[in-house]
Amino acid sequence: MNIPKTIIWERDSLQLLDQRRLPGAVHYLQISNLEQAIDAIRTLAVRGAPAIGIAAAYALVVAMSREEHTTAVSFQDRLAALAERLRCARPTAVNLAWAINRVQARAAADPCLGAIRDEAEAIHAEDRRICRAIGAHGKRLITPGCTVLTHCNAGALAVSELGTATAPLYLSHADGVPFRVFADETRPLLQGARLTAWELAEAGVDVTLICDNMAATFMARNEIDLVLVGTDRVTANGDVVNKIGTLNLAVLCHHYGVPFYVACPSSTFDPDTACGKDVPIEERDPAEVLGTAAARVPARNPAFDVTPADLVTAIITEHGIARPPLADALADLMSKPGLPFN
Amino acid sequence: MNIPKTIIWERDSLQLLDQRRLPGAVHYLQISNLEQAIDAIRTLAVRGAPAIGIAAAYALVVAMSREEHTTAVSFQDRLAALAERLRCARPTAVNLAWAINRVQARAAADPCLGAIRDEAEAIHAEDRRICRAIGAHGKRLITPGCTVLTHCNAGALAVSELGTATAPLYLSHADGVPFRVFADETRPLLQGARLTAWELAEAGVDVTLICDNMAATFMARNEIDLVLVGTDRVTANGDVVNKIGTLNLAVLCHHYGVPFYVACPSSTFDPDTACGKDVPIEERDPAEVLGTAAARVPARNPAFDVTPADLVTAIITEHGIARPPLADALADLMSKPGLPFN
Repeated sequence: MNIPKTIIWERDSLQLLDQRRLPGAVHYLQISNLEQAIDAIRTLAVRGAPAIGIAAAYALVVAMSREEHTTAVSFQDRLAALAERLRCARPTAVNLAWAINRVQARAAADPCLGAIRDEAEAIHAEDRRICRAIGAHGKRLITPGCTVLTHCNAGALAVSELGTATAPLYLSHADGVPFRVFADETRPLLQGARLTAWELAEAGVDVTLICDNMAATFMARNEIDLVLVGTDRVTANGDVVNKIGTLNLAVLCHHYGVPFYVACPSSTFDPDTACGKDVPIEERDPAEVLGTAAARVPARNPAFDVTPADLVTAIITEHGIARPPLADALADLMSKPGLPFN
Repeated sequence: MNIPKTIIWERDSLQLLDQRRLPGAVHYLQISNLEQAIDAIRTLAVRGAPAIGIAAAYALVVAMSREEHTTAVSFQDRLAALAERLRCARPTAVNLAWAINRVQARAAADPCLGAIRDEAEAIHAEDRRICRAIGAHGKRLITPGCTVLTHCNAGALAVSELGTATAPLYLSHADGVPFRVFADETRPLLQGARLTAWELAEAGVDVTLICDNMAATFMARNEIDLVLVGTDRVTANGDVVNKIGTLNLAVLCHHYGVPFYVACPSSTFDPDTACGKDVPIEERDPAEVLGTAAARVPARNPAFDVTPADLVTAIITEHGIARPPLADALADLMSKPGLPFN
């Protein structure tokens, strides 16, 4: 199974798949210094919260390997200076700061290149392990002959190796389970068309692209058996914040009796936010929507929506599957120590 | 109120708005012979069933005015030859054949240029009158301060003067009622973005473009008060066949308690087809959906969907508003003679 790799790390050499050029060209950027990493993150050559974190950690190793350090203090000072610049590449990306902080904390305890290399590789390995665990739990939902609808890209391109929402699909495919996937094109930025459809097809999964407004008609014809999406944040009550268009699918699932599943690492849970109404929704540039329309027409462009917990059938995490009542199930899963898969 | 004109007919001169170039350029094609009319219809410079019918009727007048006829028989023979060629421009367009037949029937009774000119002008005038009647009935639904969501283009560009789904909007706007419109961009061909948003903005209506997958989020925020769409066919039981994405909106309306209205001339009723399941749904070229996606990914492209009658709040026609049970209400409206507005 040939799942595209977002990040290639071999013998201290970092390469990032240039996602801006997908699906037209498969091109890897060689990251040899910090400026190249900052540019790749800022211009969305690498995207998806976990992938950004992993790329940033490796970028610090690459940049530090080019420096000469006489003392432990000079190592930490130089790392701090590089970290500060890298952190500004996408200030709102939580995983970026989180990964940089982990590398710095490791250097504080053990100020040498080998230690931060170990930390970056650990971050990457943990992410892979979490995706595998999500896939192992979620693949039970992919029954032979079923059709899965997904939205946006919570795939290998956004995370590492198996992705989150795609992990059950990749593992089922590896097991030889026959199924097919409908991928919503995901307007306005077409992540489903450009990224999800591409990575699934590359891996040999039977995937068909549809427009976001077609799901109802296929559900009415009983052609969709379940919906499986990722999420950017799950609030304490189980509300799911995800790419615009997700709520639309959840309402359709409710109407047509189709299960609506969400897959995410437990790090996506935000127990400090009571419910989705408390999450500010980013409204992006109307120009992304307008495209061919007349310039004089205004447009709205909310980038995310909130699916209320009562429309969610279950949430698949690395610790297991949380079912309603979601608030209790999520709290219970969060209290479990460590990962079930190592 | 400056509603764009699809068809301009002045002193036997026919001009058609070139809709292929909208919204970038407002350009009228001068139709001086039959070939130009056939080309305009075939290449979608003029589109929308009623508009095609009107344009075809006028095109026959233009073409016949360039001929010399010695006898009534030669007039009819020549008209028949032109009609045959015009009919093939879009063989599936029911209104095209219907309008051509009307012109020929008139010539059979009165084989002269004046008679077929009268017939073409009568077809055009009837269409305008029907749109005005739909608007007069429907504008009661547009209350001050409300927000209307529409999908695809059932506007002036597809019909004549006021359009069908847009007629209540234009008349309310002319009455000074404050309201705003959300226009779905309507993937894959973007008729909402290219045509509806443009014609409403040209007329001074407050219109905002959104992606098709955003309706749920605006309904959840109580920002949409009603949905108003056109239709290509209404079956005997009240099922509504319309552009793909319409069913999606109807399900959302049902979930969020938002009224779902359909506007159409009574000629759209198809009492001979029992229900929507009996209507074959055209599946168009996947290339329309694929766009930027990888060529190796297949796509589905159903052009229409079927909204079951039980999701329809009411159907607005030139004879009045049909409310559930729709089958009875539609049969009742159809039995009424003539138009209420003249």
